[in-house]
Amino acid sequence: MLLSETISRINEVDQGVMLKTKSRLDSLIKPPGSLGSLEEIAIKLSGIQNRVLPVYGKSSVILMAGDHGVVEEGVSAAPKEITLQMLSAFASGVAGINVISKLNDTELVVVDVGVDSPVKIKGVIDCKIRMGTGNITKGPAMTRQEAIEAIETGIVIVNSQIDKGYSIIATGDMGIGNTTPSSAILSVLAGLDAELATGRGTMVNNMVLEKKIWAVREAIRVNVPDPKDGIDVLSKVGGLEIAGLVGVILGSAARRVPVVIDGFISSAAAMIAASITEKSKAYIIPSHLSGESGHDFMLKHLGLKPLLHLDMRLGEGTGAVLAMRIIEAACRLTSDMASFQEAGLSDLDEDKLNI
Amino acid sequence: MLLSETISRINEVDQGVMLKTKSRLDSLIKPPGSLGSLEEIAIKLSGIQNRVLPVYGKSSVILMAGDHGVVEEGVSAAPKEITLQMLSAFASGVAGINVISKLNDTELVVVDVGVDSPVKIKGVIDCKIRMGTGNITKGPAMTRQEAIEAIETGIVIVNSQIDKGYSIIATGDMGIGNTTPSSAILSVLAGLDAELATGRGTMVNNMVLEKKIWAVREAIRVNVPDPKDGIDVLSKVGGLEIAGLVGVILGSAARRVPVVIDGFISSAAAMIAASITEKSKAYIIPSHLSGESGHDFMLKHLGLKPLLHLDMRLGEGTGAVLAMRIIEAACRLTSDMASFQEAGLSDLDEDKLNI
Repeated sequence: MLLSETISRINEVDQGVMLKTKSRLDSLIKPPGSLGSLEEIAIKLSGIQNRVLPVYGKSSVILMAGDHGVVEEGVSAAPKEITLQMLSAFASGVAGINVISKLNDTELVVVDVGVDSPVKIKGVIDCKIRMGTGNITKGPAMTRQEAIEAIETGIVIVNSQIDKGYSIIATGDMGIGNTTPSSAILSVLAGLDAELATGRGTMVNNMVLEKKIWAVREAIRVNVPDPKDGIDVLSKVGGLEIAGLVGVILGSAARRVPVVIDGFISSAAAMIAASITEKSKAYIIPSHLSGESGHDFMLKHLGLKPLLHLDMRLGEGTGAVLAMRIIEAACRLTSDMASFQEAGLSDLDEDKLNI
Repeated sequence: MLLSETISRINEVDQGVMLKTKSRLDSLIKPPGSLGSLEEIAIKLSGIQNRVLPVYGKSSVILMAGDHGVVEEGVSAAPKEITLQMLSAFASGVAGINVISKLNDTELVVVDVGVDSPVKIKGVIDCKIRMGTGNITKGPAMTRQEAIEAIETGIVIVNSQIDKGYSIIATGDMGIGNTTPSSAILSVLAGLDAELATGRGTMVNNMVLEKKIWAVREAIRVNVPDPKDGIDVLSKVGGLEIAGLVGVILGSAARRVPVVIDGFISSAAAMIAASITEKSKAYIIPSHLSGESGHDFMLKHLGLKPLLHLDMRLGEGTGAVLAMRIIEAACRLTSDMASFQEAGLSDLDEDKLNI
């Protein structure tokens, strides 16, 4: 079975190489630690890639799309058909993620894992598992088997991208209503009250926000997901595109490829991936702190510190791809800056340093 | 006189154009406001450039270097001669700012406004006003006339870059000891206690930090700078490279060119520029939140929200140039995304929106 095989292939990152990268960074012509998070990212990448000087190669963003039965409860200001319409926009190159991907030389792959329409769109990979999830306030989003199939779809897609030579992967999502299942996942896995886990999504008003909070609570009450079983949580209160992204994360980790997560939906997928196997966390690179409330709880739960604070809440992978240049900079600085010795710089006075 | 002429040429940004840019952004295929700070930056740039669709053109970072007499009080772990040594590193292309500038196609210009050495380095523009500042714990950093000359140097340099076709400017600094005068500027202009205004710089230990706090207090006590007179503050407790950056900021504003400020030292320069003329603030684009404590007070004082949270504290303009791609993305998204109408998307339900 692809999923269990993939999980078994996820290894620990290389701590020895990471220490060597840290020494290299400490030798460069700058105050110790003064590149901050860039140093942390370089060290993380070195452990993933098993190279003292990590490299930034070709990047690809995998955008998973799916629909959500819970939209019938009125939890979003956007009608459900926008999911399909946005797939056309992605294919035409006129959406936010197209613009940002082009700017950063990142290849965009759009996958339909569960859009609620029989229409096929040229340029979108058709891996539809089912026509949207069930209404989670009334029953499970999907069966356990469907959740596994959607995860395996993500694994297949990311393997295909890695085989083509892409060596850094970003995650993206499209699915009207998908902040509601993501909030439910956060609530279950972090043991967080629905009120704290739920935000405004498409900027809904207070009335709709109340309905979302109710929907999250009701979904958990009706389905009783087991917080110790990530696949159970995913199938009962999750989404098909979220499941696809779980596969992208696990598949990247199994191939020792860094995976840059976008915002709220991608982080919900990362929480599921981490609950399936804790080892996957070492392969996940944060990007931005979303404007969606609750995202900070997700990142803290994952032990990740966001690089960009832009109050973005668009999804599509836009925040992840925007962070690519920062990650590239972390690699280049580690490789290309001179050391104190190489540049003939005077030593710092260690008696004055806080180290 | 170049300085007063420059100040008189700084106009208000165009509010009408900014409103049109906001309408354009609201029409794009995304939830309203979901590009967060990218929308704010696009709107700010449109007002500066007087264009509904702001453009990201050629970028240049201007790095001003100077030495500080206060280093003799033991306020830094780095010896003073590193300022000059780093100029050689910039000229050889092996410092942090070289790596990041190359990655972002940003031209680096290095200017010696006051390094304490007669040595001239090929590739560094020699505009030395004096051989480092005086020890601010014992008297003024420089005369008022020298401060004005250093500001005018920045104006001349930025005008030359703009004349060459650079249409977005970043600020950078090099000067061992320059967090101490920057903390003094923050303390005077924001009325902030020296203890809150002073951080660890090159990561000095508690003993040196105490000495820095003392130096900031003593500099203010001895020189009695007038918080209502930015040039007085600059000349009494500032630095030559800080003065040069004040000129870069004022010069950019006078030419309606956006100026992206780096961290603690550049923000001290921005505070001086804003105290000289409040109108200059509209031309300043924030980049990162420095790891240097006190920087958040500076940005709040300036009313700016940082884009990157990387705990960097290297200076040189590294944070500003790292943010360039984010600013470019803001421009491209505004121009290149389709509107709801163009993409044939269904309308959002306004009754559910929080607008």
